[in-house]
Amino acid sequence: MNGPGNSLKESAETQPVFVLSRPQLGRNIGAAARAMLNFGLDRLRLVDPRDGWPSEDAIAMASGAGRVVDGAELYPTVADALSDCSFVFATTARRREANLPVVPPSEAAAEARARAEAGQRVGFLFGPERAGLENVELARAGAIVSVPSNPEFSSLNLAQCVLLIAYEWNLARFDKECFDFRHERLQPSKLGAKEVLADKLECDLERAGYFWPESKSDGMKLNLRSLILRLELSDPEVRTLHGVRKALKRMGSSGGLGAEREAAAGGVAE
Amino acid sequence: MNGPGNSLKESAETQPVFVLSRPQLGRNIGAAARAMLNFGLDRLRLVDPRDGWPSEDAIAMASGAGRVVDGAELYPTVADALSDCSFVFATTARRREANLPVVPPSEAAAEARARAEAGQRVGFLFGPERAGLENVELARAGAIVSVPSNPEFSSLNLAQCVLLIAYEWNLARFDKECFDFRHERLQPSKLGAKEVLADKLECDLERAGYFWPESKSDGMKLNLRSLILRLELSDPEVRTLHGVRKALKRMGSSGGLGAEREAAAGGVAE
Repeated sequence: MNGPGNSLKESAETQPVFVLSRPQLGRNIGAAARAMLNFGLDRLRLVDPRDGWPSEDAIAMASGAGRVVDGAELYPTVADALSDCSFVFATTARRREANLPVVPPSEAAAEARARAEAGQRVGFLFGPERAGLENVELARAGAIVSVPSNPEFSSLNLAQCVLLIAYEWNLARFDKECFDFRHERLQPSKLGAKEVLADKLECDLERAGYFWPESKSDGMKLNLRSLILRLELSDPEVRTLHGVRKALKRMGSSGGLGAEREAAAGGVAE
Repeated sequence: MNGPGNSLKESAETQPVFVLSRPQLGRNIGAAARAMLNFGLDRLRLVDPRDGWPSEDAIAMASGAGRVVDGAELYPTVADALSDCSFVFATTARRREANLPVVPPSEAAAEARARAEAGQRVGFLFGPERAGLENVELARAGAIVSVPSNPEFSSLNLAQCVLLIAYEWNLARFDKECFDFRHERLQPSKLGAKEVLADKLECDLERAGYFWPESKSDGMKLNLRSLILRLELSDPEVRTLHGVRKALKRMGSSGGLGAEREAAAGGVAE
């Protein structure tokens, strides 16, 4: 799903490049491509993929993002792949470079957005599955992105790491206020409509001898009313509950299907 | 890497359960397990995995998170898998349920944290790879989690979706603001208790001829169940509604005050 009424088309000029250094498995490259396109990104660069290129596995795993795989650019070295970038974030689970700032994905995304809007090309660099980035590759980075994770099991799958960066990049384009997804809910019914439901139910239950013993009846009535009034119900749902109430109370009576069908129609009038 | 100087050990009591409904591919189950453990989560439940269980593919893809795969619990239905949950978030790219709040993962995680801190068990429900969740499964949810994504390519891989929820769940633990509300609320009843109420009401209404016309009866049943399952009710309130149901259905019948008083006592047994 998308944010409020926007297209997620990212311009080729401002979107970051994602550089996978020495990726081992084609299926991870494909999954990374799919994750990128899930968030409107399609500038994928590969440095020396272990199993060669193109890759059948990559295309199979891309699952609809084949054009990102097809459009991936091959480079012999990380330096080449990053040469047109103004700023590079390196992703790693190990913070070997004490001299670089280490930021979580959300901060990296915000920073990358700001730089992209200022006309800079930003790169995100991802290391190979097993070994991660080498220090010589990290040397191209201006900052390290590190995902806050389980210290006892911190190694993210390559495509999962790509996904988190793409996800945060996308989030960073919205102000927090934009995430008002709740406007499409049905309008809640007004209190008055629920009072009517409570009134009729109370009346029925009074006749059924439900509020018993007498000494507790006021408390029982209040509790029941309170329960009904705080339910989050739409108007159609209030009508449904009226229909349910009427159907139930006619169950044991002599009323034939006619009465029941009237109840099923959900009308409130009696 | 991990957050600022903390262990990510999540207690089995407070962590959410992740329920994969009818997952198709073992490798996605394994990747989901890995993604969960990356963020300290290990309570995985499976409903009717297509290719059977256990799965070699799942173990291979778990890549170090084998214990999450080994510990996965199997259930025959979504209702069974969620029966001990007090609140359920369903993940879907399609917002078919206009009457549920739709929130991004960050908000869902904050809400889930708050509920877990208040002693509630929270479930996250994920649909099968190709088709997503069915409406009858969505009926168990109190809210829909939707990932803001590319409208032209919004379908996330199952394990990627699991990853984003686990990632945001983990981030939410650092957000102090999540923890300081809702403390005065009554403990909500578990989904299983509301399912029983829905079952008995449906049975009564079936006998009353309420689900009419026949062509609409399935939709009416689903709407009614969905309405009941998402009500925020405490256990005493669920018992109250059982009592109300029984009192109403005995109104027109020959049952004397004795039967009505039994109903008034609010017992569920019939």
